[in-house]
Amino acid sequence: MTSPTKSWIPYTSDCDFSIHNIPFGIYKTTSGTAHVATAIGDFVIDLAALNSLGYFQELRIDQSIFVNKYLNDFIALGKHKTNRVREILIELFSSTNSSLATHQAHKEQVLKAMKDAEMLLPVHIPNYTDFYSSIEHATNVGTMFRDPKNALLPNWKHIPIGYHGRASSICVSGTNFHRPKGQTKAADAELPTFGATKMLDFELEMAFIIGKETQLGETISIEKTNEYIFGMVLFNDWSARDMQTWEYVPLGPFLAKNFASTISPWVVTMEALAPFRVAQPVQEPQVLPYLQTTQNNNVDIHLQVTIQPEKGEEKVVSNSNFKYMYWSMNQQLAHHASNGCNMQIGDMYASGTISGPTPDSYGSMLELSWRGTKPIAMPDGSERKFILDNDTVIMRGYCSNDAMRVGFGEVKAKVLPQL
Amino acid sequence: MTSPTKSWIPYTSDCDFSIHNIPFGIYKTTSGTAHVATAIGDFVIDLAALNSLGYFQELRIDQSIFVNKYLNDFIALGKHKTNRVREILIELFSSTNSSLATHQAHKEQVLKAMKDAEMLLPVHIPNYTDFYSSIEHATNVGTMFRDPKNALLPNWKHIPIGYHGRASSICVSGTNFHRPKGQTKAADAELPTFGATKMLDFELEMAFIIGKETQLGETISIEKTNEYIFGMVLFNDWSARDMQTWEYVPLGPFLAKNFASTISPWVVTMEALAPFRVAQPVQEPQVLPYLQTTQNNNVDIHLQVTIQPEKGEEKVVSNSNFKYMYWSMNQQLAHHASNGCNMQIGDMYASGTISGPTPDSYGSMLELSWRGTKPIAMPDGSERKFILDNDTVIMRGYCSNDAMRVGFGEVKAKVLPQL
Repeated sequence: MTSPTKSWIPYTSDCDFSIHNIPFGIYKTTSGTAHVATAIGDFVIDLAALNSLGYFQELRIDQSIFVNKYLNDFIALGKHKTNRVREILIELFSSTNSSLATHQAHKEQVLKAMKDAEMLLPVHIPNYTDFYSSIEHATNVGTMFRDPKNALLPNWKHIPIGYHGRASSICVSGTNFHRPKGQTKAADAELPTFGATKMLDFELEMAFIIGKETQLGETISIEKTNEYIFGMVLFNDWSARDMQTWEYVPLGPFLAKNFASTISPWVVTMEALAPFRVAQPVQEPQVLPYLQTTQNNNVDIHLQVTIQPEKGEEKVVSNSNFKYMYWSMNQQLAHHASNGCNMQIGDMYASGTISGPTPDSYGSMLELSWRGTKPIAMPDGSERKFILDNDTVIMRGYCSNDAMRVGFGEVKAKVLPQL
Repeated sequence: MTSPTKSWIPYTSDCDFSIHNIPFGIYKTTSGTAHVATAIGDFVIDLAALNSLGYFQELRIDQSIFVNKYLNDFIALGKHKTNRVREILIELFSSTNSSLATHQAHKEQVLKAMKDAEMLLPVHIPNYTDFYSSIEHATNVGTMFRDPKNALLPNWKHIPIGYHGRASSICVSGTNFHRPKGQTKAADAELPTFGATKMLDFELEMAFIIGKETQLGETISIEKTNEYIFGMVLFNDWSARDMQTWEYVPLGPFLAKNFASTISPWVVTMEALAPFRVAQPVQEPQVLPYLQTTQNNNVDIHLQVTIQPEKGEEKVVSNSNFKYMYWSMNQQLAHHASNGCNMQIGDMYASGTISGPTPDSYGSMLELSWRGTKPIAMPDGSERKFILDNDTVIMRGYCSNDAMRVGFGEVKAKVLPQL
């Protein structure tokens, strides 16, 4: 279909939630029930209300799909249905359609002011994997902690390296948390100590949500991976660097990560992102056949991180882009399923820290402050090597071209003092 | 209460499912419905039937708790109720109680021959963590792959090292799977290749199931950890060693593990295991205060691993014991929650490979065959360095003293040829 260029809901050109987007999320109604929703402009649009009013009649979707704490049941309908819901919404809200626009009673049931709407965790996440797919990030970390001349480990250009993370502690944007405690050992100390982390960091990431399951033993050929990817979110993979350094050998990060992770409330579909697909970086040496692809698998998503001190001004600390990823989501997924590991609807697979080629595009304080050696000056005159108590970290992301803007809104959380 | 010594259900002295045990599991009825069950002797006992017949009347438990695909809702009742269910069962099946024993119609509804009963995955596992808590195993691996003089990494005696695993691919005993494929790189090869693993291994482990949840930010003091541990299962953490070697730096094992893991169907409660509690090994240097405990936290559980070739005889390849664990379950849990990571009912936390002090007590083929340098002779004249196609690996575990035996039955699975 040809996308209409305008909606009867007004919004400005810098709005993430244009009629070209139509993301999916879960919001809490004034009566406290969770409903599936989308967003246009400054409005949350209640899909449970639209369904009960008959606007999706052709699809015969049970109301329990929309009156739901999570998107999983909706996603499980399959792309042929969820894409049709999105198309119906684009049609219904286009400026040339007056059926809902002129029906005041229906509009009152369907449209909610975004500023008043509490957004909930959009998906139940059965399994969460974090990849490590930015070559700039992996190179920076390898340079800092190992050998600048051999920053990348031998497997890095052959395998989209990833590890299992903790699903239970993934929270929706706005969920603040207390500075975590844990074991750390100073380089010059003989013994470790236990206490609040002194090196709390963010990691600018994005994640994709699995939309179609596989059975144990089943694999996914790279050509078919797009069928399994429902959409994407912004993701902050909070990390306690001092805990991580001490605990991570030989089995990887654990308590340095699982105290909290934060995702944005709106899942932007791959269909909305399709106009912004770009080629991924050239991979040299050539990867193994099960990872080879010539599709445009990356997405040109502008990303920004800001730090906002308590009662202070936001300071932009990073401008990056998802297009820099060396390993694509499609390669990550084909690899993840290559041993028969079964995929479940709602599984969330994150990119790893997204760093760009220039120092102002690095995706973590570890890199931005280069292990604390280059503190960042804040507008109030203070400095940041890592994240301080009562700092709010905000990440934003959007795609745009001459015709449209499709964005993710923001993911934010405040670090409260240790308990 | 004083445990009765006999049941009116007959069993021999080497039976794992004595009246002192009363484990919990899920079985599939002849009509295909899943019910909560326990086991005595050669019988599966249908708790949904017992509840509908009024035997748990004092507890007023909704029937939906027992007609259930998983134990999670039952576990969520809390130990005050689940322990009372266990006490009622011990009383009901004791040889001095005739109420059910003499009621033929009720007996027919309640007792099912174990040989005909299909057991299902007992719990829905929201999060799975694998620890690395056997000092003998960690020392063996460190000796083989790093430096025999510094086999343990500096953090090992301070932190119960663990990492997140994949929950979706955990299967119940009897679920066979195909030899997984993946990337490997021979030590003398320049580039990796993709194909079926040549070094498929088992890992003899046990795991505990979380019985009480915590909220994000909440910690668990080590003195209170027993309140959160519902029970234990046998666990085979299948591992593809050649894939693991190539992929695991720097973020830990991933596809080398998540193709399949296997647990035993019966969850044995900590109350049944209480008579077999023993002290854990002395920890030197002393651990940090949040991990210090003087309780008898280990359990004396005899463990055995056998390999059974297709149509061949079982060969015992390892005799180990859970009591060897350097880090206790209580320490693992206190550590896991020390940063505020939230625990969910049904979470499964595994021990890591349980190796004992002698070569015949090692818990993996990697150690038993010492990286393939000491093949194990099989009764049919063949050798095993790792697991071959159509081999079935069986693990068994039990506790016993002069008065009673409490066992786990077995966990087994067959390795089918690659797809």
